[in-house]
Amino acid sequence: MPKEKTMTNSDLNTLKKIMRDFAYTRDWNQFHSPKNLSMALSVEASELVEHFQWLTEEQSKNLPQDKLNEVANELADTLLYLVRLADKLDIDLLSAAKNKMKLNGQKYPVDQSRGNSKKYTEFGS
Amino acid sequence: MPKEKTMTNSDLNTLKKIMRDFAYTRDWNQFHSPKNLSMALSVEASELVEHFQWLTEEQSKNLPQDKLNEVANELADTLLYLVRLADKLDIDLLSAAKNKMKLNGQKYPVDQSRGNSKKYTEFGS
Amino acid sequence: MPKEKTMTNSDLNTLKKIMRDFAYTRDWNQFHSPKNLSMALSVEASELVEHFQWLTEEQSKNLPQDKLNEVANELADTLLYLVRLADKLDIDLLSAAKNKMKLNGQKYPVDQSRGNSKKYTEFGS
Amino acid sequence: MPKEKTMTNSDLNTLKKIMRDFAYTRDWNQFHSPKNLSMALSVEASELVEHFQWLTEEQSKNLPQDKLNEVANELADTLLYLVRLADKLDIDLLSAAKNKMKLNGQKYPVDQSRGNSKKYTEFGS
Repeated sequence: MPKEKTMTNSDLNTLKKIMRDFAYTRDWNQFHSPKNLSMALSVEASELVEHFQWLTEEQSKNLPQDKLNEVANELADTLLYLVRLADKLDIDLLSAAKNKMKLNGQKYPVDQSRGNSKKYTEFGS
Repeated sequence: MPKEKTMTNSDLNTLKKIMRDFAYTRDWNQFHSPKNLSMALSVEASELVEHFQWLTEEQSKNLPQDKLNEVANELADTLLYLVRLADKLDIDLLSAAKNKMKLNGQKYPVDQSRGNSKKYTEFGS
Repeated sequence: MPKEKTMTNSDLNTLKKIMRDFAYTRDWNQFHSPKNLSMALSVEASELVEHFQWLTEEQSKNLPQDKLNEVANELADTLLYLVRLADKLDIDLLSAAKNKMKLNGQKYPVDQSRGNSKKYTEFGS
Repeated sequence: MPKEKTMTNSDLNTLKKIMRDFAYTRDWNQFHSPKNLSMALSVEASELVEHFQWLTEEQSKNLPQDKLNEVANELADTLLYLVRLADKLDIDLLSAAKNKMKLNGQKYPVDQSRGNSKKYTEFGS
């Protein structure tokens, strides 16, 4: 097993390590270029969309348990590939997410965004 | 601010809370049905794919810093919508991910998967 | 059967009519809002991506026959939802495509684009 | 310009030829592996989804003209990459679509599918 960088204990690092071991043991690193992982991630996100495509928004808020279980698996797959891709690019997912929310706060000031689903590029139109 | 369920300290719960406050303040909950959030999530995952579509796998492993910064933002957006969607469906993302990896261990036994990118449904073909 | 607008004979109009009859007979128009159809279309496009995610670019140029047959089905599904969505929005797909290629000619002048995969927004960088 | 296979006059073949010339003139064939084209196609399909993600189904049926114009461009881009990908794989898109509709007729018999959005794999549940 290759020597790991020191990792702090956290949700995302736990998953990162599980994914590294899983891929290493199966000699899958050859398939895990960022390009390929971005494809796999988008495929999982679409498997989520597929569960909702014919439902109304109201129905999507009230899924039966068996459906919820399937959706939980797709959410899981999406997170796992996201963690794997961030690992391969050496990007700290949590920091990136926190920074992005700060940036979103500037892009979407409360007075302009309140009750409004417009993209920030459309403000004033 | 609505009363929150008790949350333990963790990466994903920190993001969950940031997202809840952000949406509440902007009166955005009306747009955040699981159906809509699944769409937004898939759109972000595709913005990631767009960065890699014309690159070779090798180039995708060696991104210049400005590209890495953009990709970090898309990874962040993807994680944020994932956390938001899981929250709305009341699904514990971390547990779902850990369970999925256990299931994957059964679907992809080392002896059948080693060095092989086939989907488990294709084993034996 | 509802009265159809007069349609000229063409590939896309043939498919449009097949899709209209299919959905009408099964009372599926209730599910075919443009919002829902955009989701279904993106799901099919991702099923295509799934076939290629672990292949190299070279392998993707040399698919075995059974794989090609599966891919042909996904291409078909993608086209069918595209035709259906355009129909519901009353958009002439062929005209839109021809106009877009004219616009692309302006966005991507030969001297700037030759051998270069950059998006037009990145010209000069 | 490379020698073309004989093509009959049709919507899709017209677009195929336009795309071939466009890519050839710009020396873009190097980027147009099926793998890459599948990625580009999925990205365009997601740009369509983005237009609808915060709209209700009802709003999606009543788009203002400026929105319709943007959506027409995304539909166009999706069709163009679809034609390009089918061309590179030497797949006849129109035949594939017609065959798929025949297959769909068997998968979704009217008596089981009428007014029902279930996937054929879920019939009986």
